[in-house]
Amino acid sequence: MIEYRNLKIALLGAGSVGSRVAQLLLEHGDELASRVGAGLELVGIAVRDVDAERDVSLPKELFTTDAESLILSADIVIELMGGIEPARSYILEALNSGADVVTGNKALLALHGTELFEAAEQVGAQLYYEAAAGGAIPIIRPLRDSLAGDRVKRILGIVNGTTNFILDRMDVDGDTLERALATATALGYAEADPTADIEGFDAAQKAAILARLAFHSAVPVEAVHREGITSVTAAQVERARRAGYVVKLLAICERVVDPVTGEEGISARVHPALVSRLHPLAAVHGAKNAVFVEAEAAGDLMFYGAGAGGLETASAVLGDLVSAARRHVAGGPGVGESFTAYLPVVDIGKVQTRYQITLEVIDQAGVLATIAGIFSDHDVSVETLEQSAAPVLPAAGPVASPTSDPQTATLVIVTHRASEEALAATAASLGGNTAVASVTSVMRVEGA
Amino acid sequence: MIEYRNLKIALLGAGSVGSRVAQLLLEHGDELASRVGAGLELVGIAVRDVDAERDVSLPKELFTTDAESLILSADIVIELMGGIEPARSYILEALNSGADVVTGNKALLALHGTELFEAAEQVGAQLYYEAAAGGAIPIIRPLRDSLAGDRVKRILGIVNGTTNFILDRMDVDGDTLERALATATALGYAEADPTADIEGFDAAQKAAILARLAFHSAVPVEAVHREGITSVTAAQVERARRAGYVVKLLAICERVVDPVTGEEGISARVHPALVSRLHPLAAVHGAKNAVFVEAEAAGDLMFYGAGAGGLETASAVLGDLVSAARRHVAGGPGVGESFTAYLPVVDIGKVQTRYQITLEVIDQAGVLATIAGIFSDHDVSVETLEQSAAPVLPAAGPVASPTSDPQTATLVIVTHRASEEALAATAASLGGNTAVASVTSVMRVEGA
Repeated sequence: MIEYRNLKIALLGAGSVGSRVAQLLLEHGDELASRVGAGLELVGIAVRDVDAERDVSLPKELFTTDAESLILSADIVIELMGGIEPARSYILEALNSGADVVTGNKALLALHGTELFEAAEQVGAQLYYEAAAGGAIPIIRPLRDSLAGDRVKRILGIVNGTTNFILDRMDVDGDTLERALATATALGYAEADPTADIEGFDAAQKAAILARLAFHSAVPVEAVHREGITSVTAAQVERARRAGYVVKLLAICERVVDPVTGEEGISARVHPALVSRLHPLAAVHGAKNAVFVEAEAAGDLMFYGAGAGGLETASAVLGDLVSAARRHVAGGPGVGESFTAYLPVVDIGKVQTRYQITLEVIDQAGVLATIAGIFSDHDVSVETLEQSAAPVLPAAGPVASPTSDPQTATLVIVTHRASEEALAATAASLGGNTAVASVTSVMRVEGA
Repeated sequence: MIEYRNLKIALLGAGSVGSRVAQLLLEHGDELASRVGAGLELVGIAVRDVDAERDVSLPKELFTTDAESLILSADIVIELMGGIEPARSYILEALNSGADVVTGNKALLALHGTELFEAAEQVGAQLYYEAAAGGAIPIIRPLRDSLAGDRVKRILGIVNGTTNFILDRMDVDGDTLERALATATALGYAEADPTADIEGFDAAQKAAILARLAFHSAVPVEAVHREGITSVTAAQVERARRAGYVVKLLAICERVVDPVTGEEGISARVHPALVSRLHPLAAVHGAKNAVFVEAEAAGDLMFYGAGAGGLETASAVLGDLVSAARRHVAGGPGVGESFTAYLPVVDIGKVQTRYQITLEVIDQAGVLATIAGIFSDHDVSVETLEQSAAPVLPAAGPVASPTSDPQTATLVIVTHRASEEALAATAASLGGNTAVASVTSVMRVEGA
């Protein structure tokens, strides 16, 4: 048995991820030591309540409530307590003491990333965060390093397992949102308060982190346009299915060019969108995550795996730990990433995409010309238009549709690329026109 | 405009990847400089023939035939000339002079990886090789770093685009191997001499590289069991399709445990295999590549994208260049990877997997019992057995099958996991039995 010097590891937090990290570190310590060339000694676990119940059984003597002393004793600090404070202060203390930090705290990175990265750089330490986006999926290093010589055009990410599980149930089983959410809760895929997931807050934090890396620019989480899935109806999912689409909650980070000035900017947004069933993202089922990256030279890439789970996410944390430890052994300073492209985040109104608009219109002569005119007035170009009094896939035989008012017809229009502004103005004009009984649905179409 | 100090970059080779690397470096130099914090100055391109025609037009004055002087003038050397010598000597010279090296030379790494990595470590330089496996797909860093704290159980990789294109055509269009290969050649997916691709040499080199990273052990390329696709028939592909499988050429790197001693070892092998159509790898079409990784903590991951192409592969090379340059700027030594697990590569005979065996048997009473007995004698457990005189999907109407000898019946048997040894012995016994007219096909079944 080779004897190594030990690196001292401090763990902050022992929740579902933290307790698994401690367990794996204790179980596989020798194997990890041989990969690093130094021992990885877990010197303590800081928690609020030493006696609280944990997911896994860990040696009592490791626990402490004195996080500050623990941090100062460590070479590498793993922050898995979550939340903004005291996590932020603890990480800054650790970095300022020269320790490397591994974190999975997406909320903190999305809000205070720039401050933390600068603190690390100033002292030659490094902040690792593979677990902060995509759970177990290696997506941070590919964006940070492997694609660092390329120009990312667009990222389409399914980065929230809860909402993907819900939308998948709605698609596969025809569930309503309420029933699918109840199933997700029962199976442990949704928390008691599902707001952070279903309102898109979690995805928006990940979008901010991914956009920062992809476009080498600080992207404040407040600048990420955010819509959750709470307004997605079973009818929308069914209509999408019939038209060859599936509804997914996407985190989209896109390089955009101002058509007037030619200047580049970033669109970072989270919203439900129609994705073609032929797109690789359409095959991401259940609570799985996937990040689809379009780059100028590399072309299309996809990274797929478990986006959450204590054990799965612990894998990403331990990978960061080994990386940090190897660097300690080699003896070099941290290698920062670059956020000096300073691309501005553009307003959602300027962002262009395609749309599917569903209307109930008065079934009379000339109505199509009226509708087409409204789109044309707003410079929104129509790609396809489908009218149906009966359901799109009619039942066999000449039975009248029971779901449609006989005096109205349903129009499903898919547009070419148009700005959100132009589309919103079009929708408003449609809503105000006497030929239109109602604008039933407006959905973005992504990944064409 | 910020002024940076320049890092000197030497490029060896200007083929399809090298010329694209030079082009992108010249076009996007300013943008890359801002990401690195230093200029990336391409000081020269060493080639055998300065006047040869290139894929892209590059400044004449960059070219030189004096590789050795160029190497000694550089901070970072990019080796894209391919082949073993003089590439090996040049890389060793570069490393010994303290330069970092970026390479996409899978043949060299598979054969001399250990020597090169040790040379890098001795002088504190680093060898980067994201382009050596999976083309544009970031797979090296995820295995090297992101999964460094996990235990990889198995890698199933579609790592050769040419063979995937051919097998995909055979599956989708019912082509013969010869016709699909001709199409691949016509479309530029196969080289004039396709041996390295269709005989599995290219995939075996990548398997050696991936297995080394995944299992932290040197894996000599000669130890990789290798079978190409030349014996795959249209009938096998068709029979696979009917049974819910697709035939893929897989590079498989697997952690195996000796059932007697309990000791761990590695199986590294390349061969055609049946993959369930429900497996994510089944959806990898055309010349695309994908690497499916099963890890103890992270669970199942998949990395998907372009496995070849000059521009696509140049993305991986430039990512490595930026990584190397950032490290130069930060000032630290190279951070090596670990190959100290010393797991042995086990003989293919000891490897266990599932098999699909197709037999023509004499259609008489008792033959099934005879066949079942032969499997049982060799301790090979049968999972499913299907007998058909006519094709599995019979044509409408009572027409006799034109493809089947009326005196024989076709048996398709899928086994539970069994060793290659046991299966080979079973196949030999079957072939020697008078009840068996012929053993038509033996295919491994992977990814269950």
